[in-house]
Amino acid sequence: MKAVLFQGGKVAVVEKPLPPAGRDEVLIRTVMAGICSTDRELLGGYHDFAGVPGHEFVGTVVQAPANPELIGRMVVADINCGCGGCSWCLAGNPRHCPERTTLGIRGRDGAFAEYLTMALRNLHLIDDSLAPDEAVFAEPLAAALEVGQQVHLRSQDRVVVLGDGTLGILVALTLRLSCPRLLLCGRYPEKLRVAEAQGVATRLVPSGRDAADICRELGYFDVVVEATGRAEGLASALELARPEGTVVVKTTAHEPAALSASNIVVRELTIVGSRCGDLELALLFLKNRWIDVNPLIEAIYPFAHFDQAWHHAGRRGTLKVLVSFE
Amino acid sequence: MKAVLFQGGKVAVVEKPLPPAGRDEVLIRTVMAGICSTDRELLGGYHDFAGVPGHEFVGTVVQAPANPELIGRMVVADINCGCGGCSWCLAGNPRHCPERTTLGIRGRDGAFAEYLTMALRNLHLIDDSLAPDEAVFAEPLAAALEVGQQVHLRSQDRVVVLGDGTLGILVALTLRLSCPRLLLCGRYPEKLRVAEAQGVATRLVPSGRDAADICRELGYFDVVVEATGRAEGLASALELARPEGTVVVKTTAHEPAALSASNIVVRELTIVGSRCGDLELALLFLKNRWIDVNPLIEAIYPFAHFDQAWHHAGRRGTLKVLVSFE
Repeated sequence: MKAVLFQGGKVAVVEKPLPPAGRDEVLIRTVMAGICSTDRELLGGYHDFAGVPGHEFVGTVVQAPANPELIGRMVVADINCGCGGCSWCLAGNPRHCPERTTLGIRGRDGAFAEYLTMALRNLHLIDDSLAPDEAVFAEPLAAALEVGQQVHLRSQDRVVVLGDGTLGILVALTLRLSCPRLLLCGRYPEKLRVAEAQGVATRLVPSGRDAADICRELGYFDVVVEATGRAEGLASALELARPEGTVVVKTTAHEPAALSASNIVVRELTIVGSRCGDLELALLFLKNRWIDVNPLIEAIYPFAHFDQAWHHAGRRGTLKVLVSFE
Repeated sequence: MKAVLFQGGKVAVVEKPLPPAGRDEVLIRTVMAGICSTDRELLGGYHDFAGVPGHEFVGTVVQAPANPELIGRMVVADINCGCGGCSWCLAGNPRHCPERTTLGIRGRDGAFAEYLTMALRNLHLIDDSLAPDEAVFAEPLAAALEVGQQVHLRSQDRVVVLGDGTLGILVALTLRLSCPRLLLCGRYPEKLRVAEAQGVATRLVPSGRDAADICRELGYFDVVVEATGRAEGLASALELARPEGTVVVKTTAHEPAALSASNIVVRELTIVGSRCGDLELALLFLKNRWIDVNPLIEAIYPFAHFDQAWHHAGRRGTLKVLVSFE
């Protein structure tokens, strides 16, 4: 099969043997994959990943030795594959299993390939009404929904989302169901318009200004979601939170940011790190059209043109770039 | 009256006029004051404070125009004086009033003086059974108790407190009532022994090693309380927390620390800034002898020898240095 390889900071498409599906695993033919900024961080050295990247995907089961009824079914999957035996896995939360592999991120080849293997228990069947280019949003949408799983949001809360990338927009679109007056701040008018079209209030932060400027104009927020993708975003987010307020961090920036603990202590802020979420909830959002992910698709490239897709996804201000394998 | 003054990075004892008590204020004669590491931070430029420092005190009311029944009563006080009219003050939480003054820290002369003024609503009467050198611990004890007000602790939680200064020991002594198996880590055997004598399990972290070494030996903790007083303590605390664990930050280190957001995000940690607490609860702890603060007193100096007290409090590894005005 053809697969993308990250090695030594370079991207190459190579020929690889079909991956063997282990016990309790299935073989999946990739139908659609999404390029995420985490993929670009991996190439930059994050997690010392060498292998096939790609963790946003939808595919068709082609081998399922123990479960032949799955063959031909369209699936997405939780990307964290736990050991199955530790306390995290036994509690149904393999995301923090110390022995876990993570699809295309840690110890497990990912979805930028014609085929991938996945643990049976990680699969989620896709409703027939969903197109692959919608279902492929399940993973980032679940990550967006995770904010509401961690923080108790009330309709009157003043909430601001920093960052108008795909994740920031997904957070804004979903949290708006809990907090209708939520505000999305970003640097790109055309991206903010995607959220506006679905009813989200937005605010342009022109280049050269930062979120703290907005604070001076609008006052503090109860909850600040940091999804800027930049290491320095956290400091801005802390500036915007009210005393005893909460900052949810979505950005997995690799380089360290300088933070003053005294600001956190004196204002008694709470900072919550937030990662992957509940795929079933994400699929319910997609199936019921509670949000529309289609306007987030910037381009779809055939896998044969992966290099162009990768290049496109790397441009500043790009929304979701998808890769089609059909 | 005689008062200590911080000005231009220097400590001096000067003669000042008696401070005039404003409307809804009382005049208090200081009986005992405690030196806190925050006082040393203030001298180093924290909050740009210029004035009379000192925020840990017990004193006797000597003027109370609207409430003569208070005259002669021994009191402690909440150190944050709110405007009384903002949403924070109206909600009974002046600690975050944007217009607040804070005794000896922000816009209000403090307790390293023979007299101080305080808002009537901030006063707490002291039970006759408490000696001044016990009651003077009300403020730091309230700060220690604040951890349990912010984080829901369960008896089975694995809790570690980092730092064997006065605050770290007070946190350990009080949280132990919720989490009997709590561990206190510190660098000074003689200070750890103070906590051990009241039943706290301790662990010496020799100079040159850090908390992360302990983690490798003991595993992760559900809750980590950072009270090291050092800016780099937060990074160690984050290393020690389990995935989805909580780090409570007590250290008001002024200088910024470098933090990697990806560690917070991938492990979904929660960081909670924690400052002042409930003085009534602290007084209840003292009155009922649920903890014994006496072994935390390293020395008591007469106010006439404040310079010696200040010097003593600045030595590494010092517990509480008190100043007596009687």
